[in-house]
Amino acid sequence: MNLGKKLVLGLAVLTTGLSLAACGNLNNSNIQKTDSTTGKQNKKSTYQVTGQASGSQYAGTIKNGHYVTSTSRGLTAGQNGNINNVKSFENGLQSISKPVFAPSKYVFQEGQNLSSDTVQKWLDRKSKDNPEGLNPKDNGSKSPTKRNPIYLQAMEEQDYMEKSGNKLKIKGMTIGLAMNSVDYYRKEQYGAQFETKISDADIKAQAKIMAQTVLARLRQRSQLKDIPIAIGIYKQASNDSLTGGNYLMYSVNKGASLSSWKTMDYQNYVLPEKNGESVPNSNDASAFENFKDQIQSFFPNLSGVTAQAQYKGKTMQGMKVNITTQFYSETEINSFTQFVNEQAQKFLPSGVNIDITIQSTEGVQSFLTKNANEKSYYSHIFTSY
Amino acid sequence: MNLGKKLVLGLAVLTTGLSLAACGNLNNSNIQKTDSTTGKQNKKSTYQVTGQASGSQYAGTIKNGHYVTSTSRGLTAGQNGNINNVKSFENGLQSISKPVFAPSKYVFQEGQNLSSDTVQKWLDRKSKDNPEGLNPKDNGSKSPTKRNPIYLQAMEEQDYMEKSGNKLKIKGMTIGLAMNSVDYYRKEQYGAQFETKISDADIKAQAKIMAQTVLARLRQRSQLKDIPIAIGIYKQASNDSLTGGNYLMYSVNKGASLSSWKTMDYQNYVLPEKNGESVPNSNDASAFENFKDQIQSFFPNLSGVTAQAQYKGKTMQGMKVNITTQFYSETEINSFTQFVNEQAQKFLPSGVNIDITIQSTEGVQSFLTKNANEKSYYSHIFTSY
Repeated sequence: MNLGKKLVLGLAVLTTGLSLAACGNLNNSNIQKTDSTTGKQNKKSTYQVTGQASGSQYAGTIKNGHYVTSTSRGLTAGQNGNINNVKSFENGLQSISKPVFAPSKYVFQEGQNLSSDTVQKWLDRKSKDNPEGLNPKDNGSKSPTKRNPIYLQAMEEQDYMEKSGNKLKIKGMTIGLAMNSVDYYRKEQYGAQFETKISDADIKAQAKIMAQTVLARLRQRSQLKDIPIAIGIYKQASNDSLTGGNYLMYSVNKGASLSSWKTMDYQNYVLPEKNGESVPNSNDASAFENFKDQIQSFFPNLSGVTAQAQYKGKTMQGMKVNITTQFYSETEINSFTQFVNEQAQKFLPSGVNIDITIQSTEGVQSFLTKNANEKSYYSHIFTSY
Repeated sequence: MNLGKKLVLGLAVLTTGLSLAACGNLNNSNIQKTDSTTGKQNKKSTYQVTGQASGSQYAGTIKNGHYVTSTSRGLTAGQNGNINNVKSFENGLQSISKPVFAPSKYVFQEGQNLSSDTVQKWLDRKSKDNPEGLNPKDNGSKSPTKRNPIYLQAMEEQDYMEKSGNKLKIKGMTIGLAMNSVDYYRKEQYGAQFETKISDADIKAQAKIMAQTVLARLRQRSQLKDIPIAIGIYKQASNDSLTGGNYLMYSVNKGASLSSWKTMDYQNYVLPEKNGESVPNSNDASAFENFKDQIQSFFPNLSGVTAQAQYKGKTMQGMKVNITTQFYSETEINSFTQFVNEQAQKFLPSGVNIDITIQSTEGVQSFLTKNANEKSYYSHIFTSY
């Protein structure tokens, strides 16, 4: 047994004798490994959690030293052409889960109930060979407006666990359905790409039908029969968007029939404004322009300055600013980061979360961040010995 | 005048009536623009600084709204094959400067005295056409041991400024000489690469001669005649090193003859240890191995885990850990970052600066950092709307 292994066993491991459910803190240091009384550690699965849970972050599940990855991770109906969609779909689903399954009470586990095969079948079109397909049959048309588009692009399962005996037991689930706002297709292999646009009304109508089908199928599985299952409907941004999409609505369901839907009023925008797409608050746009002007005049050759801004109704919730520069020297990046810090405090909205990333072709050079309730930015410069 | 311009002028600008030299704080808000009394703002240069100076960070120089970039930035004798050298050469030079020219008192300016032409001539070999060359004449030999290698690979000038009247005046300078430990050369164009290894003794001997020459040349310039000039001698790491090199020694000079040299006892190492190159403290190496074992078993397919470690004598000063993973989902990166945080606190040395960067082919996913005097890590996950 090498030193590494010994230390693994020395880690606090999540097994019998541990009450996870009621405490507001899943700190590993409170978790005791009790298998030593039986000596049968090789026959039982041992669970750990990834870290300390807080009110805002879930602890994740580790089984026998390995993280429990999703059984159907990353499956999509065709290629997902906008990485922002993937990221915001996953993050947003956890945001929906947090008020339903409190991070202080539940342990997060990547989806383990829907296998890769199952999800692939559900994402495919319905057909004689694939009766479980949630997307509509191919009606033979190649016309953008007459064909049946692929409505459902991706699915994600997230499991919320509690300790039961010496196991983690599933106590809640959240399902995300990522719906296309644009379905990209080809009339022939390697041919030109065409688009079928899908209205919000169609997205919602189709998503509700699919959500009902998914819910009914999940309820047929014995361990998912009685747990709360939340379902979130995500609208994918188009492939040329510089942001991901947004969740339109969600429902939390106790039975096999869908409960009522709650609307989610988040929208993502890109700054600076382009093509007449304006953000809900024009002050934010002009403040960003001022910030951008300052930043862009700093170096002789600068620099892309763009931002993703998230709004709830007319109120900005946060920004992710991306500054791309040439490769500059360490001292230049130091000075630039200081300068960006000052200008951000001066021009960018206060009271919202803001991340600013400064990168060159060499990768991320530095970044700055502040939470909604902070005034000044934390900054970090990536260096090398 | 657009709004951006107006706000530039509204910025506190560094001109007359301002005492920079004595105060320990260069906060822009203390700096007043006084040209408004003359109305001649277009004829005079206006200076700003990049941000608030602290005991540990310089404020940089902005002139007429633009950062004052170096007049000879990035020049090297031939290509520099190890980006870590570039970064640590620049950062290290500022570390040498800080005790000599206190950041609270001096404003940092990228080197403005040595032009690109001058530096290029100095870096080239001495020849009939280039009498100023600091590198030795080509003796015609192509033999690794008989040829005259390129000793001096790069030069860097950093200026330390104080306010004088309504200008910034140079009050101190630091020069870095980056010396090759290996000189890479080709016997014919596009031919195979050969190496001439250069001993530490040769590096030091050559660097001392060059430093004396550089110092004497600088003293001939009227505004550099009387200021303190620090000179640091940097030894470049080889191109295949995963760290940059290190400063061997420095001197702070008042006159035209070199003062005594002070040895700098920093060394960079790579972890895990390879090819029998062991770090000065074997406990650090085994602690890192334990950390690495934990991290590598987390995901089914992981993950490079390496680190740069800096030592002063036998004592570690800091680590920069680099973890490369596949592209994982947002929830996986969340959980992984939590886990890395726990393992780092458990295994990595306390009492030193540690940065941990987690990246995939998509770029940086998250990072963690702590200062020497902190126990817990700050962590940040890069997300997208």
